Amino acid sequence: MAFKIPALDRLIEELSRLPGLGEKTAQRLTFHILKSKKDIAEQLSAALLELKSQVKNCPQCFSFTDQELCAFCKDTQRQPELVCVVEDPSDILRIEAAMQFKGRYHVLQGVLSPLDGIGPDQIRLQELLNRLENEKITEVILALDADLEGDATSLYLTKLIKPRGIRVTRIAHGVPIGGNLEYVDYRTLSRALENRVEL
Amino acid sequence: MAFKIPALDRLIEELSRLPGLGEKTAQRLTFHILKSKKDIAEQLSAALLELKSQVKNCPQCFSFTDQELCAFCKDTQRQPELVCVVEDPSDILRIEAAMQFKGRYHVLQGVLSPLDGIGPDQIRLQELLNRLENEKITEVILALDADLEGDATSLYLTKLIKPRGIRVTRIAHGVPIGGNLEYVDYRTLSRALENRVEL
Repeated sequence: MAFKIPALDRLIEELSRLPGLGEKTAQRLTFHILKSKKDIAEQLSAALLELKSQVKNCPQCFSFTDQELCAFCKDTQRQPELVCVVEDPSDILRIEAAMQFKGRYHVLQGVLSPLDGIGPDQIRLQELLNRLENEKITEVILALDADLEGDATSLYLTKLIKPRGIRVTRIAHGVPIGGNLEYVDYRTLSRALENRVEL
Repeated sequence: MAFKIPALDRLIEELSRLPGLGEKTAQRLTFHILKSKKDIAEQLSAALLELKSQVKNCPQCFSFTDQELCAFCKDTQRQPELVCVVEDPSDILRIEAAMQFKGRYHVLQGVLSPLDGIGPDQIRLQELLNRLENEKITEVILALDADLEGDATSLYLTKLIKPRGIRVTRIAHGVPIGGNLEYVDYRTLSRALENRVEL
C-alpha cells in the first residue's frame, strides 16, 4: 500500500481476513466505501454492531434468533416430534428452500473430527440428547454432509439415539436431480445403487 | 431468509450492496461473522468508522490522506514539475507498483461522460488548471483508461493544457509485455502499429 494511511490499511486488512475475500477485493471494497457519497461506512458499522448485540443462539436448537426462542422452535404449526439435525444454521436455510420438511431443527455447531480435536463435548450433542429426553421426539433426521466427518457423526448419533427407541433416518444420498450419470462420481453412484428404491 | 431476524437480514442487505458481493456471499460472510468467536463485528465496525473519520481527499491532488497533504504531495524527493493525471486514487497504486514514475499525481475523480451527466465541472478539472497556474509544472502525463471516456477526456485536457506551453503526454497503449499477438485485439494492435518506436 503506497498511501501510507493506517486507517485505510486497517480496513483492508480486516476485510481481507473474511473468508473468500482476498486483498484485491478488500482494497476494492475499501475504495468503494471511501468514494461513496452515501454513508456506507456508518450503515455497515451500525449493522455489524446490531448483529452482534441482537442475534444469539436459540437455547433450544442452537440456530440463530433475536427472541427467546427461534422462529422454528416457536412455530406451533411445525411437527414437534420430528427433529432434523444439521451442522450449521445456514444448512437450515437450504433445507427450508426445499419446502419439504415441517419439523424442527437441531444445530450441532460442528461435526465430530478427532484430528481437529472436536469430540462429542465440542458439539451440541448433549443438548440434543437432553431434547430427546424432554421433548416428545419420535424421529431424528440426520442431514449432515456426506463426507468422512459427516458419516462418522451420523453413525455415532445413530448408536446413541436408536437404543432410546427413537427412529433415526438420514437424508438420501444419490444422483442429483437433473444430474447426468456421466458426471456422477463412483462413490455417489455406489450409494445410489445401494439405496435404490422399489418402484 | 427463513430466520426472520431483522438484524441478520440487515447486514446481509448492506453487504450485498457492495460491488462484487452477491446475496450468497453476503449471507456467507454474515454467518461467518456471527459464528466467529473473535470480535470480528466490533473490529470491522471500528475500522469502518475510523476510515470514515480519518481518511479524506488530499486538497492538492485529491488522492486519499489522513494528513494535511497526501504522502505524494508532501514527498520532497518527488519531481514537482511532473504531474500524472489519473481517474481514481486506486490508479495511483497501480502506477506506483510499476516503480517508474517519480512525479506527483492529480486525481480527476472521474472522466468526462456526457451521457452520465458528467461534464468538466463534475470532475477535478478546474483544480488541475489551478495547479498548473500555481505550481511549476512542465509536463502533464495522462494515465486515463483507453476507452471512449478516457480518450475524450484526454483530448479535452490536451486542448486546455497545451496552449499554456505545458507538455502533455499520454501513457503508451499497445501489446502487453509477455502478450501473444494471437490474443491481442485489432484495436490494440492498430494503436501499437501507429505508435511504433524507432529502434
